[in-house]
Amino acid sequence: MTSEQTSTLGPDSDLTEVFELAQQLRVDSVRASTSAGSGHPTSSLSAADLMAVLMTRHLRYDWNAPENPAGDHLVFSKGHASPLLYAMFKAAGAVSDEELMTTYRRFGHRLQGHPTPELPWVDVATGSLGQGIAYGVGIALAGRDLEDQPYRVWVLCGDSEMAEGSVWEALDKAGQHKLGNFTAIIDVNRLGQSGPTELQWDTDTYARRVEAFGCRALVVDGHDLTEVDRALKTAADGSAPTVIVAKTVKGRGVSEVADKEGWHGKPLPEDLAERAIEELGGVRDLRVEGPRPPKAAPAPARTNAGVELPRFEKGDEIATRVAFGKALVALGVRPDIVALDAEVGNSTHSEDFKKAYPDRFFQTYIAEQQMVAEAVGMAVRGFRPYATTFAAFLTRAHDFIRMAAVSDITMALCGTHSGVEIGADGPSQMGVEDLAMMRAVRGSTVLYPSDATSAAALTVAMADIDGISYLRTTRGAYPVLYGSEETFPVGGSKTLRRGDDDQVTLVSAGVTLHECLAAADLLAKQGVRARVIDLYSIKPLDSEALALAARETGALVVVEDHHPEGGIGEAVLSSLAESGSHPGFVHLAGSNLPGSGTTAELLDAAGISRTHIADAARSLVK
Amino acid sequence: MTSEQTSTLGPDSDLTEVFELAQQLRVDSVRASTSAGSGHPTSSLSAADLMAVLMTRHLRYDWNAPENPAGDHLVFSKGHASPLLYAMFKAAGAVSDEELMTTYRRFGHRLQGHPTPELPWVDVATGSLGQGIAYGVGIALAGRDLEDQPYRVWVLCGDSEMAEGSVWEALDKAGQHKLGNFTAIIDVNRLGQSGPTELQWDTDTYARRVEAFGCRALVVDGHDLTEVDRALKTAADGSAPTVIVAKTVKGRGVSEVADKEGWHGKPLPEDLAERAIEELGGVRDLRVEGPRPPKAAPAPARTNAGVELPRFEKGDEIATRVAFGKALVALGVRPDIVALDAEVGNSTHSEDFKKAYPDRFFQTYIAEQQMVAEAVGMAVRGFRPYATTFAAFLTRAHDFIRMAAVSDITMALCGTHSGVEIGADGPSQMGVEDLAMMRAVRGSTVLYPSDATSAAALTVAMADIDGISYLRTTRGAYPVLYGSEETFPVGGSKTLRRGDDDQVTLVSAGVTLHECLAAADLLAKQGVRARVIDLYSIKPLDSEALALAARETGALVVVEDHHPEGGIGEAVLSSLAESGSHPGFVHLAGSNLPGSGTTAELLDAAGISRTHIADAARSLVK
Repeated sequence: MTSEQTSTLGPDSDLTEVFELAQQLRVDSVRASTSAGSGHPTSSLSAADLMAVLMTRHLRYDWNAPENPAGDHLVFSKGHASPLLYAMFKAAGAVSDEELMTTYRRFGHRLQGHPTPELPWVDVATGSLGQGIAYGVGIALAGRDLEDQPYRVWVLCGDSEMAEGSVWEALDKAGQHKLGNFTAIIDVNRLGQSGPTELQWDTDTYARRVEAFGCRALVVDGHDLTEVDRALKTAADGSAPTVIVAKTVKGRGVSEVADKEGWHGKPLPEDLAERAIEELGGVRDLRVEGPRPPKAAPAPARTNAGVELPRFEKGDEIATRVAFGKALVALGVRPDIVALDAEVGNSTHSEDFKKAYPDRFFQTYIAEQQMVAEAVGMAVRGFRPYATTFAAFLTRAHDFIRMAAVSDITMALCGTHSGVEIGADGPSQMGVEDLAMMRAVRGSTVLYPSDATSAAALTVAMADIDGISYLRTTRGAYPVLYGSEETFPVGGSKTLRRGDDDQVTLVSAGVTLHECLAAADLLAKQGVRARVIDLYSIKPLDSEALALAARETGALVVVEDHHPEGGIGEAVLSSLAESGSHPGFVHLAGSNLPGSGTTAELLDAAGISRTHIADAARSLVK
Repeated sequence: MTSEQTSTLGPDSDLTEVFELAQQLRVDSVRASTSAGSGHPTSSLSAADLMAVLMTRHLRYDWNAPENPAGDHLVFSKGHASPLLYAMFKAAGAVSDEELMTTYRRFGHRLQGHPTPELPWVDVATGSLGQGIAYGVGIALAGRDLEDQPYRVWVLCGDSEMAEGSVWEALDKAGQHKLGNFTAIIDVNRLGQSGPTELQWDTDTYARRVEAFGCRALVVDGHDLTEVDRALKTAADGSAPTVIVAKTVKGRGVSEVADKEGWHGKPLPEDLAERAIEELGGVRDLRVEGPRPPKAAPAPARTNAGVELPRFEKGDEIATRVAFGKALVALGVRPDIVALDAEVGNSTHSEDFKKAYPDRFFQTYIAEQQMVAEAVGMAVRGFRPYATTFAAFLTRAHDFIRMAAVSDITMALCGTHSGVEIGADGPSQMGVEDLAMMRAVRGSTVLYPSDATSAAALTVAMADIDGISYLRTTRGAYPVLYGSEETFPVGGSKTLRRGDDDQVTLVSAGVTLHECLAAADLLAKQGVRARVIDLYSIKPLDSEALALAARETGALVVVEDHHPEGGIGEAVLSSLAESGSHPGFVHLAGSNLPGSGTTAELLDAAGISRTHIADAARSLVK
């Protein structure tokens, strides 16, 4: 690399110098992606001026101490513009030119195709568009309302992603909360992946939408550094959540590709890259020392006050969702616990937490994507969020949950009203796919308690489970099975009925565990001895107990109030396959479309009631 | 039931009569939910005036011939207001008072807690909020742009659900397409499930948002029948997509619950119901004969012209996504085939269809929920939609896919860029949960071709598969395995390597099938005879071939480029369990977080490359 200039820019540098930095970011974006043979240089070129001004004059950040609690946050919602982000890292001295040029998009290295928190300057993984603004709102809420830290949140997003509804859920919340510490910058470069965007350069429409959703809109020429600087300064006044609508040119600065279709996600061929670098003024080696973070507020006391578990009387009929609510309140003594609701808190019982700890309760209304995104943003700041809605409606947030796993986020999700058990409301409200969804989340923990005692214990345990944990709860009230002395380690199970000469094992969790217990009684009357296992931990699974049951009883009936695919039955089969167990096996799970009805009618119609379980057990024993 | 009045209302009835109808709808909503012991009467009362005016004067519909292609469509996005909808059905003479009073929300009956298409007057199941507008846009698009039918689409939605981003994706499309045949009516009753909505009665903000998204907003008092009538008439002028923002009172007409919190989703107790009915003027028996449907356009020719499958040369390297695009174009001779894209058509190759059949191609931009909802709306009208994006991004639409299954919709989804195979773009773009998601969809068909010939054949087959079918395709190009003479029945498989004394069977699909073939070659050199099965149909599965392989070879290695949960491995285990087969079994699937890299590097890091497969096979053979 030939360094044509070496100097350090700072907040006092004039805009002609900042322009040189912007050109350097462009050159390095071209170089990095051409050297990698893939990437999105043109999407980087459009936003280079915006980012050059931001990092030089407005982003209050210590690149050597990204953990500084007062430092600003920068989220690249348009994660495909990673060449630009990494070029900024280089300008900040955080990564070397060598790392940029030899590791970008290569195996085993941290400068991936889309940014992930493997990089210490990245809060959240992006690359699924329409998510960055939502995360940014969560981080900004945490800063202002939970931490009292002075940081600002800046989100760079593309114009294509403004078509995602999640963006509008998020801006609505930014407006509702009057998040003055939040700024989004839309890089309106007119061209999406496959052609022009819907609104192209109609910046007025973007502005009208932004304002209708309660945010301040500032329309600028994204290549006029003076205008950009003024807008960023206005945004930083903290008076309102701000969206800078910046009209830009995709591929700006490289005449052969500027504003041309067909260049999305393509590195410039080497000869074109050479001409581009020349047109951009050649390789530079400018360094940036932007504004320092402000003084941090004192870190809040994070003493883990003793959590006193709610206690329940064995035999009392209490819904697991009720126990969840009580346990969440009990957890509230820990100041890192926050709760989020999508306007069903009176059903999920997250509302109990609101009453006890209103300052750590966040209502996103019926916007499940935003609920999960806010939880992610708060988790980024070290909080332990519990986000709750009906199990069925968590499917709305599937992509956010998936990406949270890429970000290695730790958070707790709770889905209530699982299964056909809910009764008269019918199939739209029944979570019968949630176990499949949540088991397939990388590194997830999936818990499914059958009684209030275990539900409360597992709710509390989730606060200390790394990664994404999921609690599945049930609408109806069922007898408490366990005394308060019982413990429920993750990955464990409870054998509720057991004899020396059991002939079959009934395995389940939730409402169908109670059906298994009733089935065991039926079977006993018929002379069949059934073991019953409460598989409250679905992932990880108690493989030992299952292998033992397979060996000792030779036959398993697995029952679940869930579709047959991806749930408890298949989890058990995977476990048995690993342990080399080959018991007789019947899997009971409903696959037909349920309607309205009572719980008993619907369990029976789904083939998962006590009589079906007893029949299946007998068929195995014979 | 005491009928106090019996007369028939029609378009010429004056509004005092329509008010009586509205009161009847209220009374019947109260009666039905109280008799059922559950339901949402107060959410019905707020919208009764709106619906009374609509059905009497504006909804051009033949209740005796819901299949009339010119008849208007009414979608209850606020599906929980089913008492109101069913009271309308009664007023229209479509259901009897007895059915309403004795079957609502009862087991085995069609008047479910939330409406489903089991009812001939219901197009789509609702109950997951924020979906009705999106479906309505799809139906309206079909009517105007595909069928040339004169029908209008009316959607009743709640105010709470306006917090869902999907609503804004949909209104954006209504505006973009200038859908003059589309009207949404927002019942702004101020109260959600657990408390006041975010915007309460701020109808101006709703109107500003609606207008910013390109629709006409009409703000009315939802209980002033004259205002409502005028707005509905304006909406019906067809000049613009219209949103009527109607300020209403939840529980309107029953003073003990009107505008009071704590009454969402609760039937009135019997004594209160009695007082309510009295206050509402008692039980009536009014009938409605509203406007007739206009003259229908002639049904389009639906001749299934012969589809000529694209042909590929064995050994040529062609990506399955490319074959999908070519097959989709071939299918285009069928006029019922439509394609939808979420702005990645140049990657998924749905763009090929756009070039060939631009009139049947719908670009939703990056709005996957809307893409699936539009597909559902078009399927309602008898079209066969193919909606395509990256497999990873289909998770965005999970709730819409789930609900489409409740609606018994037939549509084809295609997810491209599956697995870590995609390489340098990294984990945000990798679909590694999609098989779990799609297998768990009720009644779904899941297909995963390994070569261009099978991809094309399966793409064409999907047009005639009932329910939701899913095709998983791969980014990279791999050798064509099959000649054009091969057929690929759903539920089948192909045994690609087979000998009389095979010692192990390698089972896979997609890129990892090619790794299995390479592993079989490696194993052969090491003296191990491996069978190889191409499991192109994941759901249903070829249980016979698997059981035979288990019996004949005694050992199975199942490999997939997907997370371990809910995918091919567990599908195979379920099948083996059903057939009582107990082969040695190893499941190879990646569970660690991948980064960027080449396909070979990433497959190897995930433990699913040829060497891992060969190692696993040898471990079983020993």
